[in-house]
Amino acid sequence: MNINDLFLCPICRNIPLSERESFLNGLNYHLKTYKKGAFIARQEDPVEALYLLLSGSVKTEMISDAGTVLNIEIIKAPKPLAPAFLFAENNRFPVDVIALEACEVVFLPKKSVMLQLSSNEAFLRGYMAFNSNRTNFLSERIKLLSIKTIKGKLAQYILSRARGNYFTFEINQTQLAEYFGIARPSLARSLSEMLEDKIITFKKNEGEILNMNALKELVVS
Amino acid sequence: MNINDLFLCPICRNIPLSERESFLNGLNYHLKTYKKGAFIARQEDPVEALYLLLSGSVKTEMISDAGTVLNIEIIKAPKPLAPAFLFAENNRFPVDVIALEACEVVFLPKKSVMLQLSSNEAFLRGYMAFNSNRTNFLSERIKLLSIKTIKGKLAQYILSRARGNYFTFEINQTQLAEYFGIARPSLARSLSEMLEDKIITFKKNEGEILNMNALKELVVS
Repeated sequence: MNINDLFLCPICRNIPLSERESFLNGLNYHLKTYKKGAFIARQEDPVEALYLLLSGSVKTEMISDAGTVLNIEIIKAPKPLAPAFLFAENNRFPVDVIALEACEVVFLPKKSVMLQLSSNEAFLRGYMAFNSNRTNFLSERIKLLSIKTIKGKLAQYILSRARGNYFTFEINQTQLAEYFGIARPSLARSLSEMLEDKIITFKKNEGEILNMNALKELVVS
Repeated sequence: MNINDLFLCPICRNIPLSERESFLNGLNYHLKTYKKGAFIARQEDPVEALYLLLSGSVKTEMISDAGTVLNIEIIKAPKPLAPAFLFAENNRFPVDVIALEACEVVFLPKKSVMLQLSSNEAFLRGYMAFNSNRTNFLSERIKLLSIKTIKGKLAQYILSRARGNYFTFEINQTQLAEYFGIARPSLARSLSEMLEDKIITFKKNEGEILNMNALKELVVS
């Protein structure tokens, strides 16, 4: 493990080379490794440090009040885990965090994080930007979930990603179905119908909008 | 308008009395008033200052890619408007912000905000906590929207608010229906059926859980 990998992480990568040594010296960090299947954090654990996943990947799961398990997302290194919750009034992990393979995590105690946020503008900006992007991501997901039909969700997803008439899906259809909260065959069926109706073309995660008006109508119908 | 009302706002209210004068001196703020119906910000405007709503109330609306208007929420003073977006990579207002009555807004330029975040720990904590609580709010909304049935949403909402067997709704039924993204009569019908089935009792926004197991089953059925 190389602690300098920390500077590949979104919230740290804009820290100038010249400031990195003093940044590390001010951190009071510690490192930990996890085997596949290990719990890195459990839902309701207090978040008392910033967790930076340096290598490996994790899944997050939420156990609902009724006791069922909901898969939330897969996070690949290098990424912070639940950075917003370090400062929440209810500063507890909202999810279980489970290693999908061997993982390395660096822990930055809250005190160190506060100190660095106050003294290092690049870190402050990186931290704020990451949390802001997260808010954007969650807002978009709410917008999608609010749309009642699967074709409507698909149409909104395509419109939000379109550059001119072209679009790319950054995730595969299984992941997209999970993101929409629907079953994969239902997604595939809706997508096929949109191809048949010549509203879009789509192949290998890339596509073109053929009928923009029809696509926009799907969002509201 | 009294600029000191700014210290009633969630992200500023923990700034100690002794630091308030120097905080204001470091801000380079300006104030603006709006009449009922005026646009305080338009969707896609760049967010270049922190907007603090000092008095009045606003509604936020999102115009979808398909051109329909979605009501997002009503915000009452004193509150910041879209504080997370000041630091987002895509730092644009996600919504239209429209005055519901006469409003007073104080603008803190991004530079001033950066400076104060670096030099005033109470402000930094307040800002981070507000954004974190917002993330919590959005996460909870996603969880609710992911639940397919209205009774399931209601059950989850009640469980998340329960202290022992008692619970309180902080918003009225019209607001709750909007929060769930459903019609008000559908909500009222589901609530009535849960009363008839003796799963809960409910009166004037306060209630008691009579059958915890049945309530939990509603979330997953």
